Amino acid sequence: MNVSEMLRANAALVDAALTRYTAEEDADFAEELAAERYSLLARAKRIRPTLVLEFCRLFGGSDEAALPLAAAVEMIHTYSLIHDDLPCMDDDDLRRGRPTCHKAYGEATALLAGDGLLTRAFGVAATAPLPDADLRRAILALSRKAGSFGMIGGQVMDLAGEGKQLPLSYLLKLHAHKTGALIALSAELGCIAAGVPEGDARIAAALQYAEGIGLSFQIVDDVLDVTADAATLGKSIGSDQKCEKTTFLSFYDTEGALAYAGAMTDEAKNALRPLPGSERLLALADFLLKRNY
Amino acid sequence: MNVSEMLRANAALVDAALTRYTAEEDADFAEELAAERYSLLARAKRIRPTLVLEFCRLFGGSDEAALPLAAAVEMIHTYSLIHDDLPCMDDDDLRRGRPTCHKAYGEATALLAGDGLLTRAFGVAATAPLPDADLRRAILALSRKAGSFGMIGGQVMDLAGEGKQLPLSYLLKLHAHKTGALIALSAELGCIAAGVPEGDARIAAALQYAEGIGLSFQIVDDVLDVTADAATLGKSIGSDQKCEKTTFLSFYDTEGALAYAGAMTDEAKNALRPLPGSERLLALADFLLKRNY
Repeated sequence: MNVSEMLRANAALVDAALTRYTAEEDADFAEELAAERYSLLARAKRIRPTLVLEFCRLFGGSDEAALPLAAAVEMIHTYSLIHDDLPCMDDDDLRRGRPTCHKAYGEATALLAGDGLLTRAFGVAATAPLPDADLRRAILALSRKAGSFGMIGGQVMDLAGEGKQLPLSYLLKLHAHKTGALIALSAELGCIAAGVPEGDARIAAALQYAEGIGLSFQIVDDVLDVTADAATLGKSIGSDQKCEKTTFLSFYDTEGALAYAGAMTDEAKNALRPLPGSERLLALADFLLKRNY
Repeated sequence: MNVSEMLRANAALVDAALTRYTAEEDADFAEELAAERYSLLARAKRIRPTLVLEFCRLFGGSDEAALPLAAAVEMIHTYSLIHDDLPCMDDDDLRRGRPTCHKAYGEATALLAGDGLLTRAFGVAATAPLPDADLRRAILALSRKAGSFGMIGGQVMDLAGEGKQLPLSYLLKLHAHKTGALIALSAELGCIAAGVPEGDARIAAALQYAEGIGLSFQIVDDVLDVTADAATLGKSIGSDQKCEKTTFLSFYDTEGALAYAGAMTDEAKNALRPLPGSERLLALADFLLKRNY
């Protein structure tokens, strides 16, 4: 299994869908629409949409059903980056290898572009060719896991924790929400797109996998923030230290942190290994652990 | 028909629903959850939710079906106020009679509270006890009319127009989006909650009414911004002039503007007059024209 090829193929599908979904124009709104596209269509790995697609395929669903949900998650992820980069938040200059949205378009337009992408995400999701009842499940999952008790909750904990020595339990909850919620959402939406019914054991397995790779992903992120260079990473490095953030490196050295990430990756893989056809997702877990960007 | 009583009764229903929908707690997210409630549960007229409820009743639907959609629109309206008041936007200090959200909770928390309310709105809407197919219509309408080609488009035009002499056609498009889109959304959601099928003439009538009162509402808003006092209005006055905004008073004197608003109110009423049971909505149109806050 060549994961790079899988990611490239999925990203091409997702990029084409995102381009289609944001093709509409209006001269009076052009600046904000350009800002949405600037951030959304920047080169990115499309990990979350890949999870939607791969879980949908694993459970026998079609790409046609998964793509609107995959695009919705990527729109939400992108909006969160735009708002997170704003001066009143992390105040970052570089994202996905280019100036952040507010550096390129100004704060007001960046704020609205984020709002626009978030609002658009639900409309795109609502075009998914799913049974109407499953669409309701998808909207509920999107709102819950992207919302105040999901990703936003993690951002709140992140803000509140700046400049403080945080206990590991706090850090784990923070990341289970800030990064983990959208990864779990992606896995769940893939299951919904495939028509896996609520409460089915396959959803539990998918969520366990998501939890493992989500945590591993964040630990690797913390390590890369000190070991990588900005050009490879496509975003500012050393930002954790700049914002006086507690990270996994406040508790472990690099080697220990990567060992922890490895154990989480193993847990993730164990959850899916019994399922026939899960090889691609198992390989993806390893790939994410070993990434250098 | 005593409109004040109708508004009070509807607001009580809506306030109770909004309180229920935002009751969940988590100590780690408490600050942001408090900021959401601070802005959402502030005393307000609840015009948009009233439109959802009244159109649903007019076409024979139940309050139970309408309330989640009514709450969703109010959450979206409130998030737009929070973000619109931020320093990078209109930089306002006073809203709904109290300090704006960022004055009370800081910019970062206000930003996230706005994001939280917007995200929550879709989840609350998705709990509406509607046929699943109608829920899909409601989500599509919410996303479209609150999004980049709806309300946000109007905010973009508002920003782009600051400090410029704008033609009346621009101002009309701006307000048809910035204020008009959520008013039209409210009317449409009321129809959907009542099970009025897509393309039905009753929806066209509801949207025509919404267009008329939406424009009238904005004209009166422009007039109140120069004639009312902040205590009555519950928000900063003179803000249009401060931001060098083109308003209807750039084209009409107060009397002429109010005559224009009156004509739009008449058009709104004409659209609904043939429908039995529309007296409450007709009276509401007059009430909004004559309001002093």
